[in-house]
Order: sequence, then C-alpha cells, then structure tokens
Amino acid sequence: MIALAALPDVPEIRPGDDLAAILAQAASRLEGGLQPTDILAIAHKVVSKAEGRTVRLAEVFPGWQALELAEQHGKNPHHMQVILDEAQEVLRADRGRIICRTKHGFVCANAGVDASNAGRPGTVVLLPEDPDASARALRRELGCAIVITDSFGRPWRHGQAEVAIGCAGLVPAEDWRGQTDADDRELSATVIAIADEVAAAADLVRGKDSREPAVRVRGLARYVTAADGAGAAALIRPPEDDLFR
Amino acid sequence: MIALAALPDVPEIRPGDDLAAILAQAASRLEGGLQPTDILAIAHKVVSKAEGRTVRLAEVFPGWQALELAEQHGKNPHHMQVILDEAQEVLRADRGRIICRTKHGFVCANAGVDASNAGRPGTVVLLPEDPDASARALRRELGCAIVITDSFGRPWRHGQAEVAIGCAGLVPAEDWRGQTDADDRELSATVIAIADEVAAAADLVRGKDSREPAVRVRGLARYVTAADGAGAAALIRPPEDDLFR
Repeated sequence: MIALAALPDVPEIRPGDDLAAILAQAASRLEGGLQPTDILAIAHKVVSKAEGRTVRLAEVFPGWQALELAEQHGKNPHHMQVILDEAQEVLRADRGRIICRTKHGFVCANAGVDASNAGRPGTVVLLPEDPDASARALRRELGCAIVITDSFGRPWRHGQAEVAIGCAGLVPAEDWRGQTDADDRELSATVIAIADEVAAAADLVRGKDSREPAVRVRGLARYVTAADGAGAAALIRPPEDDLFR
Repeated sequence: MIALAALPDVPEIRPGDDLAAILAQAASRLEGGLQPTDILAIAHKVVSKAEGRTVRLAEVFPGWQALELAEQHGKNPHHMQVILDEAQEVLRADRGRIICRTKHGFVCANAGVDASNAGRPGTVVLLPEDPDASARALRRELGCAIVITDSFGRPWRHGQAEVAIGCAGLVPAEDWRGQTDADDRELSATVIAIADEVAAAADLVRGKDSREPAVRVRGLARYVTAADGAGAAALIRPPEDDLFR
C-alpha cells in the first residue's frame, strides 16, 4: 500500500529562500507529517529557484552559435545561449527541438533550461548545479528520503514522464539480476529504476498549473536507506553503454 | 491523494483462464473493492497467459537469421526465432541486447518476448496481440479503467521503468500545450504521459518475484473517462517524429 499526497500551500519560492524550512512547514499541515521512511518528491524548479539557478535573459549576450540555432529553430537567441551554456553537447537540433546532454550527463530537451513557471517574465530556470547534493542537503534538514524531479521527453514514446535528477536516502535502482522469479528461473537483466518510478508516481498528484511542487510518498520504506546512497547519478547510462546516441 | 494497493492472492494464470473473473474476486478481498473511478494496472504477463500468448520453444524451428543472431549474442536460437517473429524491425543488436520495434510499434528489448515468470520451463511469453483491445475487454468486465503494463529499458537512462502498452477508460496523455502556467505564461510542448506514469507508480507496489500482477490505483478520477479512449497506442511516437532511430 502506497499513499501519495501533495504538500499544501507551498508559497512561491524565491532565490535565497530556505526551501527545507518552507517544505517542513507545509508538510506539518499534512495529516501524519513527515516520517523518516517517507520520500519527498520535489519538482526541481523550486530547488533551482531557492538556489538562485535562474537567469535573466536580458543579461545574456548570445554568441554566433546561439544566434544561428535560434534563427533556425525559431527560438529566442538569449534563451538559446543559456541552453548552450548548460549543454555539454547538442545531440539533435530538429524543428525547434534541441536535445542536449547536460553537464550532469542528463539527455533532455533544452539542456533542462525552462521558461515556464519561472516566477517572472524574461527569466529562465536552470537545473540545480548538483541535484544529488541538493537532495542530500534537503534530506539533512527534512529527515526523510528526497527525490528531485524533472519532466523529460523520451525517444519512441509520445509525451514526457517525470524522472529523478537527484536523490538521497533512496535506492535509485533495484537490481534483480542473478535473482530468481516465482518459478525459480533466473531473471535476466532486470534493473528497476525505482527513483524514476517514484518521480513518475508523484507527478500524477499535482497539476502543472498549480503550486504543488512537493509530494509525500508513504509506504516505500523498503527502498529508504540510512545512508544518502549513490543518488540519481546512478541512473545515467554511460555513453559507451548506450545504443542510441 | 492517491492510494495504490496490490490485489491479494492472485493465483497463477493459465491459458484460457477468465482473467477478469479472477481479478474481480481478488479485488473483492481488498478493502473498498473496485470502483468505477479506480484504475487497475495489470502486468501484461497475466493478460498474455490468459490469452494463450505463450510459445513452447521446442515447437519453434529457428531459421538462418535466428541461428546467426543467437550465436552472435549468446542466445537460445529458438527464443531468437520467437523474437524475430514478433519483431517488425530489429533496430539494434549489440552484446546480447536485441532492440526491436514490435508489430504494435513499441520499441523494446527482445520484441517483448520474455522467459521469466513464464509459468513453466521452456516456455516464453509474448505481448498481447492487441493490448488496447485486451484493456477494453477487461474494462467491460471489471467496470474500472485498465492499464496493461510492461517494463521497458530506456536510452540514456539506466534501468527499466514500467510503461503502458494498453489502456482503456483512461486519458493516456494529458496535453497542456496552449495552456498557461501559474504565472500565466504559455506552457510550451508539455504533454504528460499519464498512462506511463500510472504504470510506473503501480510497479512500485509489487516485487518482481511475487505474484502480484494487479494494482488498484485510487484517486485519479480526473483521468478516468466514460469512453474507452485512444488507448496506449496514442503513446507511440510516430517514427517520422522520432529523432533517435
């Protein structure tokens, strides 16, 4: 049995805000509060904003590559320059879709740079500098497992799904390789991306237009750990292991 | 608030079993039973087995392509022949990983052919012939929304996540394009793969070694529809729209 509930009445987050304190207060308004075996799934945008990971487009000077890509793909050149600054590599640029590998190793559209829900016009939000470190810091303050999430598109499948870009105190992936199924037959190559599935589950609770950035997930104590653990970095497939680059 | 619970004591499913009746009985043992606004997420394996979508490897005669691929990738040639029979196209074959597009259009390892939890040795389980049709049939009997799921690997990210291969009575994807965020700024290109997120959430409730193929998801009435709807076929990205083939 798993139960998911959005934390109520989280205010707009601004640079320098004490996000942990704000979330702790919101969680205290939820019946049952926050327990050490709970997981708190947090949309990265509030983490980024609290950490000051926002950029005012007017303060960015686009270079030649940004100007060229912006013109080709109908984008704002300032926005495009921020994308290039956050990208380690542009994997595909096609009809307005700019798929990048970020410095963290995530493959996603626009290197994770997002203009929606940025808090004020002319501002974009970046991914946290080190989302696993952000998760560890929030865990120290909040005392429960933490997953920091973002919506990524997927090849082959339509639509976006929420995934884990940072986590702490949670098994990011459960490895069943070498174990047996109900028929005692060895399971082949089964690694379950637990942190991504938690991110996806939490996304169902909140609407994209509402201010519900944090969701309490209760009932997954078996995946909650005493140590911070490997983090969501463990969910990045090494490029040399990837068949679709 | 969302609550997920596995249906208890579902017996081993065999070809010809009345799966809907078996699941209805199991659901009746769950407090609160099944309501019309519930979603039942069902691992495809029990659907496939009930529909007789299993193959005894001894009855399959591998052709030259199967023999060659089996030798190159250390696989059973009979198993490889079944994979080729189910595949419309082999996209990649690399160090034992055979990534195919199935006849349904899904891109996944081994064309969805799986030897684990097959019920008896020397037998493999195929995907349902038409998982959306299977979902519609189960919905008619059970009276709630249905998602049929499988675990797919993903490029770029380590581990598998559960996705929807069939659904009925559920909005498969929620389209926020043209709508505005909390700051009244238009959201760009945001389509949420609801059915996939439901599949992922349900996967967290059950262990791969246990007999818990069905999970009741309660609290998502806003995504449950009166009509069967477009099904999980709507989550297949058209090849011409895909940047990573």
